[in-house]
Amino acid sequence: MHTNPQRLAAEFFGTFWLVFGGCGTAVLASENVQWLGVSLAFGLTVLTMAYAVGHVSGAHFNPAITVGLAMCKRLSWKEVPGYVVVQVVAAITAAFVLWVVAHGIPGFDSTETGFATNGYGDRSPMGYDWWAVAIIEVLLTAFFLYVILGVTDTRAPKGFAPIAIGLTLTLIHLVSIPVSNTSVNPARSIGPAMFAGWDAIWQLWLFILAPLLGGLIAGATYATLFGDGEPATPLEVATEG
Amino acid sequence: MHTNPQRLAAEFFGTFWLVFGGCGTAVLASENVQWLGVSLAFGLTVLTMAYAVGHVSGAHFNPAITVGLAMCKRLSWKEVPGYVVVQVVAAITAAFVLWVVAHGIPGFDSTETGFATNGYGDRSPMGYDWWAVAIIEVLLTAFFLYVILGVTDTRAPKGFAPIAIGLTLTLIHLVSIPVSNTSVNPARSIGPAMFAGWDAIWQLWLFILAPLLGGLIAGATYATLFGDGEPATPLEVATEG
Amino acid sequence: MHTNPQRLAAEFFGTFWLVFGGCGTAVLASENVQWLGVSLAFGLTVLTMAYAVGHVSGAHFNPAITVGLAMCKRLSWKEVPGYVVVQVVAAITAAFVLWVVAHGIPGFDSTETGFATNGYGDRSPMGYDWWAVAIIEVLLTAFFLYVILGVTDTRAPKGFAPIAIGLTLTLIHLVSIPVSNTSVNPARSIGPAMFAGWDAIWQLWLFILAPLLGGLIAGATYATLFGDGEPATPLEVATEG
Amino acid sequence: MHTNPQRLAAEFFGTFWLVFGGCGTAVLASENVQWLGVSLAFGLTVLTMAYAVGHVSGAHFNPAITVGLAMCKRLSWKEVPGYVVVQVVAAITAAFVLWVVAHGIPGFDSTETGFATNGYGDRSPMGYDWWAVAIIEVLLTAFFLYVILGVTDTRAPKGFAPIAIGLTLTLIHLVSIPVSNTSVNPARSIGPAMFAGWDAIWQLWLFILAPLLGGLIAGATYATLFGDGEPATPLEVATEG
Repeated sequence: MHTNPQRLAAEFFGTFWLVFGGCGTAVLASENVQWLGVSLAFGLTVLTMAYAVGHVSGAHFNPAITVGLAMCKRLSWKEVPGYVVVQVVAAITAAFVLWVVAHGIPGFDSTETGFATNGYGDRSPMGYDWWAVAIIEVLLTAFFLYVILGVTDTRAPKGFAPIAIGLTLTLIHLVSIPVSNTSVNPARSIGPAMFAGWDAIWQLWLFILAPLLGGLIAGATYATLFGDGEPATPLEVATEG
Repeated sequence: MHTNPQRLAAEFFGTFWLVFGGCGTAVLASENVQWLGVSLAFGLTVLTMAYAVGHVSGAHFNPAITVGLAMCKRLSWKEVPGYVVVQVVAAITAAFVLWVVAHGIPGFDSTETGFATNGYGDRSPMGYDWWAVAIIEVLLTAFFLYVILGVTDTRAPKGFAPIAIGLTLTLIHLVSIPVSNTSVNPARSIGPAMFAGWDAIWQLWLFILAPLLGGLIAGATYATLFGDGEPATPLEVATEG
Repeated sequence: MHTNPQRLAAEFFGTFWLVFGGCGTAVLASENVQWLGVSLAFGLTVLTMAYAVGHVSGAHFNPAITVGLAMCKRLSWKEVPGYVVVQVVAAITAAFVLWVVAHGIPGFDSTETGFATNGYGDRSPMGYDWWAVAIIEVLLTAFFLYVILGVTDTRAPKGFAPIAIGLTLTLIHLVSIPVSNTSVNPARSIGPAMFAGWDAIWQLWLFILAPLLGGLIAGATYATLFGDGEPATPLEVATEG
Repeated sequence: MHTNPQRLAAEFFGTFWLVFGGCGTAVLASENVQWLGVSLAFGLTVLTMAYAVGHVSGAHFNPAITVGLAMCKRLSWKEVPGYVVVQVVAAITAAFVLWVVAHGIPGFDSTETGFATNGYGDRSPMGYDWWAVAIIEVLLTAFFLYVILGVTDTRAPKGFAPIAIGLTLTLIHLVSIPVSNTSVNPARSIGPAMFAGWDAIWQLWLFILAPLLGGLIAGATYATLFGDGEPATPLEVATEG
């Protein structure tokens, strides 16, 4: 991987923050803060880290976004493997630290509680069938990337992108926690599943494929739909000067 | 319709997002996230898409706003039919996709639950009479447009309009979900009503007329009340250059 | 009153919005959205209208702020009477419209429910004595004005003032709804009290005096505490050019 | 202490606001607003005061942040003692005023209710062991400082730092109120503990050491991880001209 190590550090810390802050709120606090608190937590992980390290790595924290940005030519495909590997490793690391902290209460059992994993059928929070979960994950990931591409477009106001992107993730959770516990991010799905038993792991295929498909669709269609022929600046340019 | 197709695409995706994200949270998650979560969801649909495609179409996503902006001369009347038709089609499409996803739980019945439709009398969430619903819809739509016209005025700080506009919609929902389930947007009312039975459809007249009236009042009076004689820039200018 | 009529219109609409949006959420929706929803509603009224008409009138919407700004020489004392009269009239008008809408449910009785009035002793939401209410109203109004003076200081980042000011009002409500139902604004207190019976009116003295005292203290001390000798720009300058 | 007195005033008022607004919401309102309301309150204290006095003192309001910034060379070590002493005095003052106000309800007993103190073991809200509390306090304080250093980096968008920093504190509370009642700030821990009995005071060691350690780790590693060799501007420069 020839990617700049500081970019990879930024993706590692950002994805760790997304999984530790978002899934951490779900695992440790959701009985009190409810789905609204969990939705805010996920959104704020991205809002805060996108301001903190967006100028370093572009603040993807999500393989579906990385792949969609490459599809839209905002990122070189050569950067994709390094980004994705680091995102997945960071998500697993964050889930591990969360698993350790959660054992601070005697008797904690991550396989019984779900451990903030995504799921369909009897593992969906409200019991949604796999096809409904697939539709909503593809659709919401595609809109997530449309917003990201729009707000980092040269025509959009400068500086506000992290607010819009973070709050889009909050909105996505408000709609879809009951359906799938909300993935739109294969790394976020893989991390906690590693610590929640084989049932969670067997269902990962959907939460890898559906977000990637959503990202690819949005990346492939954005320029035609909204692009207006103007060149869009890659988020990274700011750090390459 | 001679309107630029990318503008119409922006209105389609934005209005779809408003109805899918807002009504989707109401239909799928409101038992857990309560009216506060639904209010945030509606506001965040507009905040996020206004940053994403505001520079393309002006980010109306609402026939009452489109008509009010035309009344205030921020938009040519020639653009109105294309905008409004696309908004209504997008709202119906979003409600249809939501209706499909909601069937991911066996036994879902959109006519029984209300399906996030607006209503008065026995279809009002708390049983408000039609005249109270009419007052609040006219009043809140008028203020919605006053805020939109104010924050996109040349004298207002640049770049913050989507935050102010989106959070105005959140505020409007906080006040009026108990009264009317909050419309202030004929397209948002028409979409789910198509899938919620004839009772919902019969009441649509109020949720078309009252928001349009509110938009027209604000559009006709803004310049006199606050305008100060300075020319206001149409939101669209940025993309016409 | 020689004040520019558009400034008075801006103060009228802003104060109406504050009382209708904030007290409206408390009266119509607080059983569902709880104090958190009410706190957000009050903050969002100011955030949204400060972006919409802040460039017209300075967006006070509150006699304690108007008087405090005059004390700090950000506003001419000659402007104060016009501003304050319009704010109080707007608050009473908003409370009247809210009172009408609330009667859309048969049997509504504004004197029984409290109608979002402020109170101490047995009229405090949790029964706080008058002296605790007085301390918290003086203290919170003073901090409210310190934040307003700080974020509109020439040294502060441009454009963010409405966010900081609106969210300060949200924070103030989070702390003090249980104590006093939160005034920090004599106009906001006077409006609903007019429709909630004599018990509410008898207690208004505290909610007029305490916020005014807080505003005067902050206005008199800001420059010494934080001013650093640099000239601060009045909020109004932008519209006087 | 040779520090500019206006800087110390800014740190005093900011830290007072953090403890009075955050712990005040926890003590007075948390039964209604829940942990989500408390999390928002803490975040909004920092968001609002960072906009109001960030240009005066840099808006630390937290000894762990002050020490971490010194470690990262964003602040002279000579400034540290003055900042830290003022922060601790302000936190104790705020807790005292809150203690007075809370006695506005007869029978209030600050030692029984916890008075928003931090704790581990049987003083943790959900009973987390000391080692889990220590891990989460070190980790979250380190990320808090990484975000602060990132968003005040010269490469980050201007003006948004208070939003990102305040909302990071909200996120930190969403995750960790159940574990430790959330410190990440020795001053915030010391203030209420002074009024909550010896049990609270005995546990202060952890809430002094863990946040300081987290701040030092982040301060020592930021430049290597994300710094890219570019000089970062101290937050203070703006006021030194």
